Amino acid sequence: MRQAGRYLPGYRAVRSVHGFWDVCHSPELSTQVALEPMRLFGLDAAIVFSDILIVPEALGLGVTFGAGEGPQIARPLRTEADLAAWNTRGMDERLAFLPAAVKHLRAALDEQIKDTPALIGFAGAPFTLFAYTVEGGGSDDFKRARVMLHEEPALAKRALSQIADFVGALLVKEVEAGADVVQLFDTWGGLLDAHDYATFCAPLVREISDRVRKKGGRVMIFIRGGGHLLDALAGAGVDGVSLDWRTPFAAARRVSSDWVLQGNLDPVRLFASPERVAEATRAMLDDMKSSSGGRRVIANLGHGIMVGTPEASVRAMVDAVKAARW
Amino acid sequence: MRQAGRYLPGYRAVRSVHGFWDVCHSPELSTQVALEPMRLFGLDAAIVFSDILIVPEALGLGVTFGAGEGPQIARPLRTEADLAAWNTRGMDERLAFLPAAVKHLRAALDEQIKDTPALIGFAGAPFTLFAYTVEGGGSDDFKRARVMLHEEPALAKRALSQIADFVGALLVKEVEAGADVVQLFDTWGGLLDAHDYATFCAPLVREISDRVRKKGGRVMIFIRGGGHLLDALAGAGVDGVSLDWRTPFAAARRVSSDWVLQGNLDPVRLFASPERVAEATRAMLDDMKSSSGGRRVIANLGHGIMVGTPEASVRAMVDAVKAARW
Repeated sequence: MRQAGRYLPGYRAVRSVHGFWDVCHSPELSTQVALEPMRLFGLDAAIVFSDILIVPEALGLGVTFGAGEGPQIARPLRTEADLAAWNTRGMDERLAFLPAAVKHLRAALDEQIKDTPALIGFAGAPFTLFAYTVEGGGSDDFKRARVMLHEEPALAKRALSQIADFVGALLVKEVEAGADVVQLFDTWGGLLDAHDYATFCAPLVREISDRVRKKGGRVMIFIRGGGHLLDALAGAGVDGVSLDWRTPFAAARRVSSDWVLQGNLDPVRLFASPERVAEATRAMLDDMKSSSGGRRVIANLGHGIMVGTPEASVRAMVDAVKAARW
Repeated sequence: MRQAGRYLPGYRAVRSVHGFWDVCHSPELSTQVALEPMRLFGLDAAIVFSDILIVPEALGLGVTFGAGEGPQIARPLRTEADLAAWNTRGMDERLAFLPAAVKHLRAALDEQIKDTPALIGFAGAPFTLFAYTVEGGGSDDFKRARVMLHEEPALAKRALSQIADFVGALLVKEVEAGADVVQLFDTWGGLLDAHDYATFCAPLVREISDRVRKKGGRVMIFIRGGGHLLDALAGAGVDGVSLDWRTPFAAARRVSSDWVLQGNLDPVRLFASPERVAEATRAMLDDMKSSSGGRRVIANLGHGIMVGTPEASVRAMVDAVKAARW
């Protein structure tokens, strides 16, 4: 959940001299920023530093991040011709920096961090990448993307399916490079109703999961605001579901007793004194314990760490989790 | 659900010569734009033309709408001193234009539109107004507002309670002016988890509902992305719940057999041919019929009409509803 980022001084120092894409593309820099929270907080797992939009960028769509704004995509998908212009050859090569970063981070974790933390890889979920690609950037409602699902379902499905192919291939490479588990980030899937999610997204999640699991990896998925999509996820073959801060553990456990459930502390809770963070964390752990059916859980946030989050809060949360006796 | 607006030629013509606030403040102009969709589509109810941010504007906080951006609030709420500076005297007078618009619209409906349509008043729900007021404008996550709930709960509660008082008073005036039902719009309440909603919001909805119902009015509430908050709404005293396009009728009916349920066609469905809109509308009606327990329902969209929506689609939706036999 965005372990490394602007809330950390080491990250800010790196970014003051290197561009965002440069950090992503350099296994050394990527590893350096990914290790910072491991050293600071003693987390049980590390996540590779990357961005969900590396796939559209590798397709040649021109992804940039304006200062203070969301991402912009220079060549959005609007027509069949746009899709035909995607630079689909050589994707493995253009995305090789991410498995390289995973491999580099894996070695660094083994050498430098005690207790051999797990390593998490990730990629954007197909719908979220499709949504940015159709919209040409961020949006409140991703109207264009959602309209395309209904008005040009054949084009939408071809685009989604191509994206899913590249996402699956990328996640397989991450697993081969040493990721124990990969997470699909679906920032915008929660905009869809359950029927559309089941129609357009769940089958792709299933395909990706099957590919990753065949290689011995495990798959988790996070859908922001996706509490209404748990049933639609039931057959999608994922090992785990990361719950957003509004989705109770009990709701997910009712759908599947097999899922590893991860979550779900509201990141705004970290803007508090360490004592209160510890209290909120313990309340979350109590809820996990009482409502997740005695099955496997991972204590985490229910969305990405926010800019400005105090380091002491993250430490207080981690310490409260480690101190818990089940 | 934003019946009047930029998708209509008459509205655009009015706005080409009058500012947004001017239209809100003039009973004649407000009525003119509110009548346009009544004439075009033969709807069963009209909604007064207004904006949820008239309450912070009347408090002297300086609300403006930048071109293409969300609203900006010049004097946001950050401290006790900010709250103390709210211009709370004379709110009734400064907001009198809205009941005046309701009254003017009521008379125009009675005179000019056949079958005496119902009239809906509205106001922003306390949390949404609080969220804009604390944040100083729009936001993806309303971090400041949500942090304030936890870090300065006394200040947050005082602010929310004051806002709720003014919202309640305003809605009572709308009912006295001729509104049959009033809707609370909670655009951002869905960002809260059920516990926070029950703590900070539901009691205020209850207070407002009690005041309005005492005057013979009825209350509906719309919470965008609020499917996880239905249980928290159960005791809030509302007559009806407007469902967002992701929240199934059956989920709301399970919580209460008394609620009038309104909704929930996805507005992106209107970017289609009239035939397909009619089809989608019929599918929604079938769902309403089979899952809402034979109780009272109102066919509507599951969010506001979007800019660019074809008039023919709105007409096709209305006609499909009117043609339905239950």
